[in-house]
Amino acid sequence: MLSPMPPEETPHSRVGIPDYDVVLTVRNPQKPGMIGSMLAVVGAHGALVGDIETRYIGRDHFLRDVTLSVHDQPHLEEVLRAIETETEARVEDVRDLVFERHTGGKLRTSRTTPVESLEDLRYIYTPGVARVCKAIEQEPALARTYTALGHTVAIVTNGTRVLGLGDIGALASLPVMEGKAVLYDRFVGLSAVPLVIEEKDPEAFVETVVRLAPGFGGIHLEDIRTPDCFWIEDELIRRLPQPVMHDDQHGTATVLLAAVLSALRHTGREGRRDLTCAQVGLGAAGLAIARLLMDAGFDVVGVDPGDDARQRLERAGGRTADLHDAAAEADVLIATTGVVGLITPEMVRDGQIVLALSNPVPEITPEAAIEAGAAFAADGRSVNNALAFPGLFKAALDVGAPAITSAMKIAAAEAISELAPAGELVPSPFDPRVHDHVTAVVTRAA
Amino acid sequence: MLSPMPPEETPHSRVGIPDYDVVLTVRNPQKPGMIGSMLAVVGAHGALVGDIETRYIGRDHFLRDVTLSVHDQPHLEEVLRAIETETEARVEDVRDLVFERHTGGKLRTSRTTPVESLEDLRYIYTPGVARVCKAIEQEPALARTYTALGHTVAIVTNGTRVLGLGDIGALASLPVMEGKAVLYDRFVGLSAVPLVIEEKDPEAFVETVVRLAPGFGGIHLEDIRTPDCFWIEDELIRRLPQPVMHDDQHGTATVLLAAVLSALRHTGREGRRDLTCAQVGLGAAGLAIARLLMDAGFDVVGVDPGDDARQRLERAGGRTADLHDAAAEADVLIATTGVVGLITPEMVRDGQIVLALSNPVPEITPEAAIEAGAAFAADGRSVNNALAFPGLFKAALDVGAPAITSAMKIAAAEAISELAPAGELVPSPFDPRVHDHVTAVVTRAA
Repeated sequence: MLSPMPPEETPHSRVGIPDYDVVLTVRNPQKPGMIGSMLAVVGAHGALVGDIETRYIGRDHFLRDVTLSVHDQPHLEEVLRAIETETEARVEDVRDLVFERHTGGKLRTSRTTPVESLEDLRYIYTPGVARVCKAIEQEPALARTYTALGHTVAIVTNGTRVLGLGDIGALASLPVMEGKAVLYDRFVGLSAVPLVIEEKDPEAFVETVVRLAPGFGGIHLEDIRTPDCFWIEDELIRRLPQPVMHDDQHGTATVLLAAVLSALRHTGREGRRDLTCAQVGLGAAGLAIARLLMDAGFDVVGVDPGDDARQRLERAGGRTADLHDAAAEADVLIATTGVVGLITPEMVRDGQIVLALSNPVPEITPEAAIEAGAAFAADGRSVNNALAFPGLFKAALDVGAPAITSAMKIAAAEAISELAPAGELVPSPFDPRVHDHVTAVVTRAA
Repeated sequence: MLSPMPPEETPHSRVGIPDYDVVLTVRNPQKPGMIGSMLAVVGAHGALVGDIETRYIGRDHFLRDVTLSVHDQPHLEEVLRAIETETEARVEDVRDLVFERHTGGKLRTSRTTPVESLEDLRYIYTPGVARVCKAIEQEPALARTYTALGHTVAIVTNGTRVLGLGDIGALASLPVMEGKAVLYDRFVGLSAVPLVIEEKDPEAFVETVVRLAPGFGGIHLEDIRTPDCFWIEDELIRRLPQPVMHDDQHGTATVLLAAVLSALRHTGREGRRDLTCAQVGLGAAGLAIARLLMDAGFDVVGVDPGDDARQRLERAGGRTADLHDAAAEADVLIATTGVVGLITPEMVRDGQIVLALSNPVPEITPEAAIEAGAAFAADGRSVNNALAFPGLFKAALDVGAPAITSAMKIAAAEAISELAPAGELVPSPFDPRVHDHVTAVVTRAA
């Protein structure tokens, strides 16, 4: 799912699909109908049922592990009370699958060369390593060959805008950064190192990143608040020789461009650039989407209640309008505002493409948009950031590109869109072709 | 080998054992005596011969890979010329084993949790991860359980004092930091992340480390020049809640204390603390050795030509003397100066323990020291830093210790010394017992 969406939403309010997963160990009498009646009660209280596994069959009872998805902790407590009071089942244990999966962290740094003897040490450590150091001192470009730098990305944040949680600080953002690093490893085999930096001042943050940058082939910025993220990224791009990209801006924009290209194809407008796209919401993601659409050749009009946000787009050469005017002229209406119901059926033009992408609830549902005359409509559920950043950085590092350019992002978007299944905006990030394809196409564009 | 040794030595001068390893692919005629005569020529020019592997047997010639150790590039060229002019063999290829072992770097960061489906993503990334973040925001100590922090150490340097190479800068020091990280992985299974920081100003360096410290369970400082390393370490220990240790000081001191304890055992003085140790050379390692010997209960006298160096020991409560006076009163004479021949036979007392540890050539050879009346003498060849730091940090992280104390270092030194083979100062770092033993003993001391 696309994240983050401005403005911030509490992610566990009781809207959308329950996403708080737990395993209950349930004991119930060994007679027919017990599990069915328990699951009926669970369902009546709004929980979704997942796997059910029998753990133990006793003389007169079963023990089963039942996976449930609820909305939040109060909802879980409500469901547990209901099981206790409305069924014969007894809950003996509640395990939190999310916390179980995060126990011990999600990353490990390990050696790629055998070290089994003092002879090995002579090669990988002293005295041999001194020659490698001297070679790099004389010719710094050799670091790409003789260190891990050529396949290593720093994932850097100050924790000021984490998912929908806001400013939770550097340390608390670490599980997200580890998650991003897991995806780099899983999808393109890059080594990614989370660096959570306790520094909110943009200038001091930039200084810190510049100082630690020499050891990394690329700098992936993540979850930095608006407007700081704009200046920080610009400044780091200006000062550092290696590629720097704020994923919340450009990774998101790349996947969104892919979604737009797919929607054009689905409506028989493939290859058309003589169209107007309205980008509603000019936060970190929205501004980047607007700019990338412009770079891809579209006419773009931006919408945002904030003067600063509109001015940023105008300084980048874009134009702005109010929501009604923009919607009225748009061939493609994109919204990333987080404001439920912002787009009313009256705003939808006949034949328009409507991508209302906020999670968990969109600005207008696809059904309502179609009913109002849209030719194609989708929400953001299937739009996943993890489609773009792995291949973008993998390609950039493979060819030693100094930056991730618009041309590279557009190439990535085209590659992602090409692999979207019929009627869908984008493929699954687990499509085995997608990351190699993105990497190959971006490599050519770099 | 112990590194670094002050003052700086060019590591590849033609002293000591040749340590520049190459593989020659050699073609010679298929008749008896060819390889023998070639190796004789190689040996006559001072190169050591390692493995010989036959690659190809042709109609009238052999192709063999011959591993040689030479002193440096000019020495290699001399040997190649000698083969060309004095034998029938022809060298078809020269491969540098050190650079081969470093190609692609020596580290990789990878996931420890399976990610094979969108369902997996819900747990390890959004939306599940948000709950883990919130839990850590509310109770920061949970980061030890739910992130990799509890098994992750940052290896931090500014590249100002790398091995014997001096100030080669941050980037060129990366192969050494990767090597250290390899050892953490190999010996105790910790994840270690090299962070090479382009910042020589001590205050700015400290600020940088403080900002990036939240994501790491421990901070291993490495290869920072004297005297900056003293203030930097003190300041980071004062400001950070997790253990901080400059290995060139305290890792070295721990292994040295182990060597002293072994030497006492070998001379029947096990357990004696009523002895005077002279520490000759009060650089980063020497000062730490002197202080740790004091903490272990020994009477210590320090020797250094530098006023600043002597004053640092005096401020730490130690006393100093000139070399002759110190040697005259010392039961144990330790030298880490890098000055070949600094200790003359006349300085050696009857029954003294002499540990002249500079590499590649000591202040006095063990043979000369014994001849001059020493009861025990050794050089630094077998004294390896990698014996101490892995177990010290592993124990500190396992128990969540806020610092690596003298008590922990002394416990580590005793554990290392216990496993030294008969007549040796320390065990091999590849002794399968050593790191577990150090970790266990330090855990109890923490």
